[in-house]
Amino acid sequence: MASSAKKVKKSNDTTLEAESEALEQIDSVQNEIDALNEKASEEILKVEQKYNSLRKPFFQKRSEIIKKIPSFWVTAFVNHPQISGLLEEEEEECLHFMEKFEVEEFEDIKSGYRIKFSFEENHPYFENKVLTKEFNLGANNSGPTSVSTAIKWKPERDLSKLLSQKPLNSRRKRNLEYKSFFDWFSDNTDPINDEIAELMKDDLWPNPLQYYLVPDIEVEPEDDEAEGEEEADDEEIEEEEEEDA
Amino acid sequence: MASSAKKVKKSNDTTLEAESEALEQIDSVQNEIDALNEKASEEILKVEQKYNSLRKPFFQKRSEIIKKIPSFWVTAFVNHPQISGLLEEEEEECLHFMEKFEVEEFEDIKSGYRIKFSFEENHPYFENKVLTKEFNLGANNSGPTSVSTAIKWKPERDLSKLLSQKPLNSRRKRNLEYKSFFDWFSDNTDPINDEIAELMKDDLWPNPLQYYLVPDIEVEPEDDEAEGEEEADDEEIEEEEEEDA
Repeated sequence: MASSAKKVKKSNDTTLEAESEALEQIDSVQNEIDALNEKASEEILKVEQKYNSLRKPFFQKRSEIIKKIPSFWVTAFVNHPQISGLLEEEEEECLHFMEKFEVEEFEDIKSGYRIKFSFEENHPYFENKVLTKEFNLGANNSGPTSVSTAIKWKPERDLSKLLSQKPLNSRRKRNLEYKSFFDWFSDNTDPINDEIAELMKDDLWPNPLQYYLVPDIEVEPEDDEAEGEEEADDEEIEEEEEEDA
Repeated sequence: MASSAKKVKKSNDTTLEAESEALEQIDSVQNEIDALNEKASEEILKVEQKYNSLRKPFFQKRSEIIKKIPSFWVTAFVNHPQISGLLEEEEEECLHFMEKFEVEEFEDIKSGYRIKFSFEENHPYFENKVLTKEFNLGANNSGPTSVSTAIKWKPERDLSKLLSQKPLNSRRKRNLEYKSFFDWFSDNTDPINDEIAELMKDDLWPNPLQYYLVPDIEVEPEDDEAEGEEEADDEEIEEEEEEDA
């Protein structure tokens, strides 16, 4: 590839001079285009900031009304096609004590956002009132990072321990990239590809009502073959996990 | 999943009434949020349209200067890490006659765009002066579609025929999803996932100079094992294609 590129550019001296002049002209036009792009981004960001402020009181109002519906958020989680995939039975029980779920974008939007899970006082699982997972999308030069609240589990209900001790065959079906809800919450190793966080921010948070109202209906398997394949996949996962243990 | 969602929502009658009232309130707040979202989208689109108009004269100026540099566009194609992967040797030769490459977004931006390849008069490959591939992103209800100009090949230089007759081992290395440039151009079966078109629009077109100037340098293989794997892959492809023939 490199050699063919060089061949293309080979030419005599006069043409080279004309070319070099033309390249400088292109560069200068390109700078003007880049400047316009930057101005466009700034203007779009201002529009987004304006509407973020305008939406805020409505989100607050929504949060207050949602509090009146017991288990609203855990139901929306359970009915969400991807988020539901995280929830172990015990985690779902725990999330019934979550009375508020919020996504807050940072003031300048582009630098990051935080997801806040607020819980009832005195629930049996952990001491924290609020669990926060915060994404800093490269405001500093080190690139995106995420931080989560350290969960102060009550010893007899420490799901991070209890779930890892649970026999595999009594756990819910998982896909290959297995992660439970609290695994996801505490994992900050790959903040760039946190698909769950993005779904919470861009899909669940903008309109949770649709998930609360419409359960993720399981499609009845139409032929036995497909069903068989699914089971085969599950067996593979279990075998792999057993080998690791 | 569905059963567990139902369980969550099971409750007594008074609570159900209160819940239903709360749900209506949420729905009404949600409508106000949706209306704001729509207004935000409209405003952002207006900003984008404004800057598209502002950028246009600079793009035109850039196109005029680029014409002074022979083989500018084919060089940028050859140096582009993904687009280069399309180019058969004969196609690269043909694209030396392309004097203009343009991407035009439709007036309202969201409804689509077209990619235009303009060629010198009287070149040896085809009769068309301009080849266009146009993407309609669902302005009609039938979803995205794409259309390409029918190429009027000169019989002795019909690359669509010549390339398919060429022995496989004299063709360039290909990855598994093999497609040549004119294969890509004429293929309108999957307009939603046309990665090449998107790279042309969002990567090459905004700044082609970076690709003209910096050739895609081939990294020297560091160990023999990796090199061996690559060759093995190629053999697999050839075998598959031979079986099809």
